Amino acid sequence: MGQPRPGIHEGMSITFLGTGGSWPTAERNTACIAVKRGPEVILFDCGEGTQRQFQRSKLSYMQVRRVFVSHLHADHFLGLAGLLQTMSMNERVDPLEVYGPPGIAEIVAGFTRLAYFKPSFAIDVRELRDGDVVPFPGYRIEARAVKHNVPNLGYALVEDPRPGRFNKPRALELGVPEGPAFGSLQTGTPVTLADGRVVRPEDVLGPARRGRKIAYSGDAVPSEAMVELARDADVLVHDSTFGDDYAEANAYGHSTSTQAAYVAKKAGVRALYLTHFSARYRDVRPLLESARRLFEKTHAAHDFLEIDVAFTEEPAEASPEPPGVAPATARRRKA
Amino acid sequence: MGQPRPGIHEGMSITFLGTGGSWPTAERNTACIAVKRGPEVILFDCGEGTQRQFQRSKLSYMQVRRVFVSHLHADHFLGLAGLLQTMSMNERVDPLEVYGPPGIAEIVAGFTRLAYFKPSFAIDVRELRDGDVVPFPGYRIEARAVKHNVPNLGYALVEDPRPGRFNKPRALELGVPEGPAFGSLQTGTPVTLADGRVVRPEDVLGPARRGRKIAYSGDAVPSEAMVELARDADVLVHDSTFGDDYAEANAYGHSTSTQAAYVAKKAGVRALYLTHFSARYRDVRPLLESARRLFEKTHAAHDFLEIDVAFTEEPAEASPEPPGVAPATARRRKA
Repeated sequence: MGQPRPGIHEGMSITFLGTGGSWPTAERNTACIAVKRGPEVILFDCGEGTQRQFQRSKLSYMQVRRVFVSHLHADHFLGLAGLLQTMSMNERVDPLEVYGPPGIAEIVAGFTRLAYFKPSFAIDVRELRDGDVVPFPGYRIEARAVKHNVPNLGYALVEDPRPGRFNKPRALELGVPEGPAFGSLQTGTPVTLADGRVVRPEDVLGPARRGRKIAYSGDAVPSEAMVELARDADVLVHDSTFGDDYAEANAYGHSTSTQAAYVAKKAGVRALYLTHFSARYRDVRPLLESARRLFEKTHAAHDFLEIDVAFTEEPAEASPEPPGVAPATARRRKA
Repeated sequence: MGQPRPGIHEGMSITFLGTGGSWPTAERNTACIAVKRGPEVILFDCGEGTQRQFQRSKLSYMQVRRVFVSHLHADHFLGLAGLLQTMSMNERVDPLEVYGPPGIAEIVAGFTRLAYFKPSFAIDVRELRDGDVVPFPGYRIEARAVKHNVPNLGYALVEDPRPGRFNKPRALELGVPEGPAFGSLQTGTPVTLADGRVVRPEDVLGPARRGRKIAYSGDAVPSEAMVELARDADVLVHDSTFGDDYAEANAYGHSTSTQAAYVAKKAGVRALYLTHFSARYRDVRPLLESARRLFEKTHAAHDFLEIDVAFTEEPAEASPEPPGVAPATARRRKA
């Protein structure tokens, strides 16, 4: 798999591998959202049958680098058992990172000890708590406790700001020769010209632009924590287990589609994707329609839906990055 | 679910819920064979995603009464974890029996302790060994050690003989009145007529007819044990992971389709169904053709294939039933 390339030009897409509720239907598998960013795939939840959903998608499970589990209901993690085994049969050597709420380490350890299984690769697990931020090259993952009927983490993938737009006429005017020097300046390295003058990146780049942001609620009732986590996200993927017809949605720890729209609107996201639909809804259009009444940029996810998360040209905010905790790999014992 | 009705008139069918090898493909899920006999479903193996295969079939997972696991490779048992949870979410109360080689009890116990899971019903597990026979109302399951690269049990479902054909003219001639008395005689109960004469079943029934028999190899190299287990079966479902092109089939503990045909022919079965096809074969027709050269009554199973296992009119053999071991329920602790 190798190291990811520098983050600034990475394409990013979301493939919905499972958009059903706690039990699957013929049309919707249990929860799994795959984010492809450059060459790596990041999973949010991994319900039973995820490996087969991969096989029916354009993605490869061998690209999965890290998995973030929202909570320890089986429809959100059972697929890890088979995924680990199939990765091993495919002779994976790259380590896999798994993150989740306290308890995920014991579950993953159990999956690695099933009968004759012996993983062919390292599995690095890190348990996360409310407010944890995990830094990776080019982006960070923020975890927040988001209310369900068991401890549940919502996640946000927040990209680093990317460099401002390159002002080519200005660079030429300053005497920078076309070629590798352009690339150096675009990725933040000053260039010394033949005559000894130094051209700095800020001489030829516009203001830094914001990175992309995706937020995922896991199973959740609407909450202020999720609003904060999803603030200004390009895409919010939110629990929409029920429609307005189901008065007990929150009692079961879930949201209605209208409540998901409420979170999206309050957080000012650019697009909302509804997921985790209960098996009771064969047709989710009524859920979509009621959500759109509140927040127009709402979509209903379906299995194998693939969406691009586009770059924006907006300037990055000046707010400093929050302090991070160590990624799972930092905990690896020496072999 | 309730008790099964007397076995003699039970329809029997096999639905192939998973016909792929150790990793699934878009077309073939991991191993699972569902036998429906009257109102109950009996599973042989239960790979990941079996609950969803049920949802795409005509069967209900709530009808599953007992599961026989052939061996402890994950593609043959991982689906139990999700199946147990979904049965609970559906508020199952009927106990479920699980059988398999030594080690299955620990695996099932692990599945019942995953995070927040608490089964809503009793799960009775019994570990089986070579030669064990488990009696049930109307049929028995025979287990034989069948060679794979880990301990593996082949299974045969052997129905009790059913009563001989009812000779209605003879019954009327003897003075038996049409109605309930006919039913009594057909199911083995003597009838006392108005004039005091006793008519016994053997007076009006032809010779007992053989019950139906299904044999399943699990993952297996061809073996004499499997030939014995499958003797005279109506249907043999056999490992056919590879074609003749793959010289190392046996080194990996599997059979070629031709070897499956060899077992079928030697056992004198009425029909062979090939299963557990490696993902390398997108088209299994060459495997089918080579098997048919040796044994014409060969078929290639595919996911959701459903076949009826018909009654036969052949007389039952005189051989006594082998002594049985107790079903799993006999081990249940007092609540």
